[in-house]
Amino acid sequence: MKKITILGASGSIGRSAIAFLRLHRDKFALDAVAFGRGWETAAAIVEEFGCSAVSFADPQAAEAFRACGRSGGCEVLSGPKASAELAARPVDTVLAAISGSAGFPSVLAAIEAGNRLALANKEALVCGGPQLLVRAKERGAVVVPIDSEHSAIFQCHLAGRPNEVAKILLTGSGGPFRTWSKEAIRRATPADAAKHPNWSMGPKITLDSATLANKGLELIETAYLFDIEESRIEVLINTSSILHSAVHYVDGSLIAMLGAADMRNAIGYGLTWPERLATGVDLIDLARIGRLEFERVDDERFPCLGLARHALHSGQGGTMMYNAANEVAGRLFMKGAIGFTDIPAIIDRCLAGDTARFASDLDHVVTADREAKAFAKSVAERHIAEAA
Amino acid sequence: MKKITILGASGSIGRSAIAFLRLHRDKFALDAVAFGRGWETAAAIVEEFGCSAVSFADPQAAEAFRACGRSGGCEVLSGPKASAELAARPVDTVLAAISGSAGFPSVLAAIEAGNRLALANKEALVCGGPQLLVRAKERGAVVVPIDSEHSAIFQCHLAGRPNEVAKILLTGSGGPFRTWSKEAIRRATPADAAKHPNWSMGPKITLDSATLANKGLELIETAYLFDIEESRIEVLINTSSILHSAVHYVDGSLIAMLGAADMRNAIGYGLTWPERLATGVDLIDLARIGRLEFERVDDERFPCLGLARHALHSGQGGTMMYNAANEVAGRLFMKGAIGFTDIPAIIDRCLAGDTARFASDLDHVVTADREAKAFAKSVAERHIAEAA
Repeated sequence: MKKITILGASGSIGRSAIAFLRLHRDKFALDAVAFGRGWETAAAIVEEFGCSAVSFADPQAAEAFRACGRSGGCEVLSGPKASAELAARPVDTVLAAISGSAGFPSVLAAIEAGNRLALANKEALVCGGPQLLVRAKERGAVVVPIDSEHSAIFQCHLAGRPNEVAKILLTGSGGPFRTWSKEAIRRATPADAAKHPNWSMGPKITLDSATLANKGLELIETAYLFDIEESRIEVLINTSSILHSAVHYVDGSLIAMLGAADMRNAIGYGLTWPERLATGVDLIDLARIGRLEFERVDDERFPCLGLARHALHSGQGGTMMYNAANEVAGRLFMKGAIGFTDIPAIIDRCLAGDTARFASDLDHVVTADREAKAFAKSVAERHIAEAA
Repeated sequence: MKKITILGASGSIGRSAIAFLRLHRDKFALDAVAFGRGWETAAAIVEEFGCSAVSFADPQAAEAFRACGRSGGCEVLSGPKASAELAARPVDTVLAAISGSAGFPSVLAAIEAGNRLALANKEALVCGGPQLLVRAKERGAVVVPIDSEHSAIFQCHLAGRPNEVAKILLTGSGGPFRTWSKEAIRRATPADAAKHPNWSMGPKITLDSATLANKGLELIETAYLFDIEESRIEVLINTSSILHSAVHYVDGSLIAMLGAADMRNAIGYGLTWPERLATGVDLIDLARIGRLEFERVDDERFPCLGLARHALHSGQGGTMMYNAANEVAGRLFMKGAIGFTDIPAIIDRCLAGDTARFASDLDHVVTADREAKAFAKSVAERHIAEAA
């Protein structure tokens, strides 16, 4: 039996992971689960799986859980540091699915404890930078990515050695504005940006898919995770999201991973690596699909990708700022305060300054991230004032 | 330096392999080469690479080589058993590229000697059956296939474990008659069958690509090499021959190998495994290629595939007979003695009898193959007589 801890158990990744564990009750024990405040869901999960520990960011939720009479002797942690405490308990795999910078301390804690990490939190790598992976290596904590693209690259990497990789092919759908003119994109509304062609996801990542800022974050993660310079990462559009990413080897072989647009595949792989088990995802039928279509990204209409490459050249401070600026600008766009093309414009302005000052050691990433976001806010305010 | 022996050094695979070794003179030593009769080519190769041994099937060619004054102290073997003697010399890898059943004894000798085998000879597996791989395992001889499809499957296999494979996807171009009507295929001439859409190959394999008998032989090889029942091997047409084959895993991941239609890729991999080195083959550019199209095989217009599945159910005798009948019927077609659709008809008649009697142990495969071909000839003669 492999012991699993799930951080962010009530989010979409966490729920899919729990559904996966239900398929394989004979192979996995859900040892611990971290929640924000959803104590009723927690009570049901703890009862079902007989977890030994649960954490709540919200102390009142912890109190309600303790009082509900369904905790079954399970240890209860609470408060802002509870998820990190939970992540440090020794298990086989910690699934890190608390999103945003709130998830960083628990990612770091899992690594420090030498737990294998199934990583679904995008910001951890983008903000923590390569030092997070250096620390993981030092602690013997294997990091298996859970994003569908990075899981694909990880799987394709198994067919060769790191020094045999010529190029990584990071694929994307191109988002809802792939065929839109520059002018139409400029006028795009929050409602337009909320329609992803292939994946059903939360509002932030759906917007990030429209700007291609999400592909930019993935490009940064790819560069860090697979220790490869950005010039050797090519972004390719596969409109149907069937080809999830691929690795070009020096001998001319391209090893690709294909599958349904279904997160359960990557989640299952993250939990079962180095094995594979049924995930409930059907095999794809290429004959029925009929064709796969590919095209390059138009950097002029979608400048966020080029900005991510630029950010990478500035190191950890740069990629942290890229993420902060994108988050701040995206929120302003959703509120109607700025236009769609102001998002890359604001990221560009944020990256133009000295971003190195936001670089920090692992213990201060959350503070540095807060400062980067405050800086991005001030830049955005200036941007809006100048446009008025 | 890795020591290499090349059997069939003047054929297309052999020449490509030698060109590959020229790219990596610092990593490989061409230790021994087997020729049929081309002593002048042999002299040039031996001079260039300083080989320690050379063999000629033709004793007169061996004599001419000895007399030419360019042998540089290289050991010379000659006669029908010379290539097998050469294959048994201890090296890192023996590339088996002598085609047809003539290549069988040297394949077996390389395996018996425990040499790693880069296998380009199709008939060896189809005629020798699973026992050849059992023997290889006993002797510690790793078999790396050199056919582009099997090399692809081998590479995709690296991303998982054998028991995690749900299905193998064996791809093919569909051949020159893919879009032809049943009636047009019936009237196809040898000249029509000589035009392969993507690969430039010898006349036999080009005809076998038109009947899809080649895909049938590959299906048999796949079943034997990867120890998988035929019902879990799906044949898929990719008209552009970019997707070279793939492996479906139980978790829903499809790992595929793509590349240019260039044999140097598989040859290089066969010689470098478990590493990869530059092969002179360019990386493919999926954005430039634009699209990949897939379709199923029409079993009615192309019955050779279904016959290969049938042959597999009869074991080694069946697959040996499939190969023999196809070779005999193909030769008759090229001579104009039978029509195109008589090829599967003759294979079908040959498989209808008791094929188990052609099964043989490894030491008698060549004799059994000769008997199978004699039987196929008699069946074909009866077929022609009945049609007249």
